Amino acid sequence: MTEQLDDLADLIRNERLRDLRVALDELNTGDIVDFLERLGVKDRAVAFRLLPKDTAVEVFDMLDQSLQHEIIEGLKDSDVAHFFESLDPDDRVRLMDEMPASVARKMLRHLDPRERSLTNIVLGYPSGTIGREMSPEFVAIPEHWSVEQAMEKVRRAGVDAETIYTLPVVDRQRLLKGVVSLRDLVSSEGHTAISELMMEADSVDADHDAEDAARMCADRKHLAMPVTDKEHRVVGIFTVDDALDIIERAENEDAARHGGAEPLNRPYLSTPVLTIMRSRIVWLMVLALGATLTVQVLDSFEATLEEAVVLALFVPLLIGTGGNTGNQAATTVTRALALGDVQTRDVFKVLWREVRVGITLGSALGVLGLLLVGWRWDWPTGAVIGLTLVAICTLAASAGGMMPILGKKLGADPAVFANPFISTFVDATGLIVYFMIARAVLGL
Amino acid sequence: MTEQLDDLADLIRNERLRDLRVALDELNTGDIVDFLERLGVKDRAVAFRLLPKDTAVEVFDMLDQSLQHEIIEGLKDSDVAHFFESLDPDDRVRLMDEMPASVARKMLRHLDPRERSLTNIVLGYPSGTIGREMSPEFVAIPEHWSVEQAMEKVRRAGVDAETIYTLPVVDRQRLLKGVVSLRDLVSSEGHTAISELMMEADSVDADHDAEDAARMCADRKHLAMPVTDKEHRVVGIFTVDDALDIIERAENEDAARHGGAEPLNRPYLSTPVLTIMRSRIVWLMVLALGATLTVQVLDSFEATLEEAVVLALFVPLLIGTGGNTGNQAATTVTRALALGDVQTRDVFKVLWREVRVGITLGSALGVLGLLLVGWRWDWPTGAVIGLTLVAICTLAASAGGMMPILGKKLGADPAVFANPFISTFVDATGLIVYFMIARAVLGL
Repeated sequence: MTEQLDDLADLIRNERLRDLRVALDELNTGDIVDFLERLGVKDRAVAFRLLPKDTAVEVFDMLDQSLQHEIIEGLKDSDVAHFFESLDPDDRVRLMDEMPASVARKMLRHLDPRERSLTNIVLGYPSGTIGREMSPEFVAIPEHWSVEQAMEKVRRAGVDAETIYTLPVVDRQRLLKGVVSLRDLVSSEGHTAISELMMEADSVDADHDAEDAARMCADRKHLAMPVTDKEHRVVGIFTVDDALDIIERAENEDAARHGGAEPLNRPYLSTPVLTIMRSRIVWLMVLALGATLTVQVLDSFEATLEEAVVLALFVPLLIGTGGNTGNQAATTVTRALALGDVQTRDVFKVLWREVRVGITLGSALGVLGLLLVGWRWDWPTGAVIGLTLVAICTLAASAGGMMPILGKKLGADPAVFANPFISTFVDATGLIVYFMIARAVLGL
Repeated sequence: MTEQLDDLADLIRNERLRDLRVALDELNTGDIVDFLERLGVKDRAVAFRLLPKDTAVEVFDMLDQSLQHEIIEGLKDSDVAHFFESLDPDDRVRLMDEMPASVARKMLRHLDPRERSLTNIVLGYPSGTIGREMSPEFVAIPEHWSVEQAMEKVRRAGVDAETIYTLPVVDRQRLLKGVVSLRDLVSSEGHTAISELMMEADSVDADHDAEDAARMCADRKHLAMPVTDKEHRVVGIFTVDDALDIIERAENEDAARHGGAEPLNRPYLSTPVLTIMRSRIVWLMVLALGATLTVQVLDSFEATLEEAVVLALFVPLLIGTGGNTGNQAATTVTRALALGDVQTRDVFKVLWREVRVGITLGSALGVLGLLLVGWRWDWPTGAVIGLTLVAICTLAASAGGMMPILGKKLGADPAVFANPFISTFVDATGLIVYFMIARAVLGL
């Protein structure tokens, strides 16, 4: 498949656009997206303009935000306006977030009144909330209706609505009373009352954090969830594919931060080298600055080092083991926080677990270290290494377990506090512990 | 909410089971799952047995595999058999994978013939394939039918089928011709031909890798995808919530491996400390063993170290920076591989990008290192640190970018080759480079 896509890219390079148009016609939208993602900015704009209008909207919807933005920039103004009109309100808002404010305002002015008011509903919620990601186009069913009435409304309104598979049921004040599934509607008699089929609704408040709402939707296996305002009136709906998008963006961010970089938010191969470098340099500088702490610690123990150069040999091993233990704990806890398995108020439960895990791991490694170093060098040095391993593992596991929780309590992304940050912290404190133990045991 | 769940846990401890049953009745299934996940094994079994049958099956479906297994172990044999019968075939198979083979066989024998044969279809595919995760209960529509006929079939068969929102369309040989959505069926006239509404089907082969298929389903925003055999006959369907499950399991695995541990596959707070420790100790030992390389490298340069103890001060900083650079590259590439943005055959494109990124990052840090160390210590040492930073960053970024791809080519999980593994590799080679540069520049 991917080889075939490379052949298509050759068609652009050789300007055989007619052939490309024919070839694109034979691909399904998913394959077209894969193809576009691998192209450079200019080639992508060329290929995109060859797509039929309907396919173009579908394909556009599946692209990463940054690529959407670039494509919009490459279109003529009249095309943009038309295009903008054919998007769903939530996708439109996401795109507007990427544009300069003046362009976004102009776009909004050109929409027809109905689309503009729908877009304004979504724009009314701050970014990062589920209100900003939901669709305001939903089909609500009054609770006193029958299945027949509901099916009639679905038939009429279904084309525009984001989903018709999960329908919010409301009372006369538009307050959410429950949900009914199209599955149940289809398999019931026409005269059945909606109130008989209605299930309890799992809904979210429009001000709720978007990632959290998305995870809830995914965990609970809902195809869609109604979004309500403070008074519990239905204001929108968000579907599992919106949830997937939100989760994927969050996972990208977590993965990147975990590795000590900012997320690229675009496919790797179509990202300029300079952008990749920029996503990493700040973090690298901050971490290197943190690491100067280790230079200072070692500098202050230089006399001890000069007396026993052998101590220097184990520095990378000890801080590496500390870093690894810390990462293990931090990764587990960060993940548990993301999945909602651990709450910030569980902080002491986590600490107590990680202290025990750290001591156990440290003891196992410590005995090994004592025996190996004692046998190869001498027993006092072996004792220093063994004791240091116990101390460092305990320290690292507890710090690793606590930091993501503290980070979340401070309102920061827990992943930022994971991995590289912990290594730096454990490196410095671990070295202090190492030299204190060495001085005590070796009598330096 | 979580505080309220803690109150419920107190009801178990005080054996007020009648009150608990009443309280559970008022929770929705999602909240019940959250509650059960936070309990210990015994309390969980007690609470689970209080649930009404229907709720129990729904709740069971949402629990992690390992918890499902424990609950089954806590039930009476007759309850297990009943329970087993009420699960979907794909969930049944997933549960059987966790049971001792003899128990699983006994269970299978007690199923009614129809359920047994459905289960056997899924069991026929190797684990790790989408065939093993799909549902064999789907509603296929013959392509020569009308909407009215199709709706009639959906109404009759809909209750048992995994989904009725995406329906495979087949010819007389059951070969997949396309899909039709319930949305289109509902909003069309009864006499419309199915062939008019049919869309091209994005299907997967039953032998296809499950994670890959799940990502495709999520990326392309399908609610469900038909699964076909070698002859392109429809054998099952898998839905977006199955895809979400598969992706979550894969992400858990990646996150854990990335942090140098095995995945827990169960909620953190309900995992025994010893299990957590076991998930980490093997990796930690392997990495510590790898780190003995650094001891050997330093040992072989001990003479150089004794002559210039100042060199020891920068060891943690240098290998830390190398590790960070390597992690950044490895994380980005691992993520790009998981999302399908990078293929294994892109290996040289990735190498060339990472070499350039590494040189740029290394030069920026190197100049900084040269100036700071030159000013605080002396200029020759500054030159050593500066040059080493350029070399280490380039080395680390390229190794970090390559390893996940090589790992995938070798058929291993790319995440295994990321993070801690790379640190160990970069630590050892980085130290060699450091001392070679030091010897050359300082003339030791």
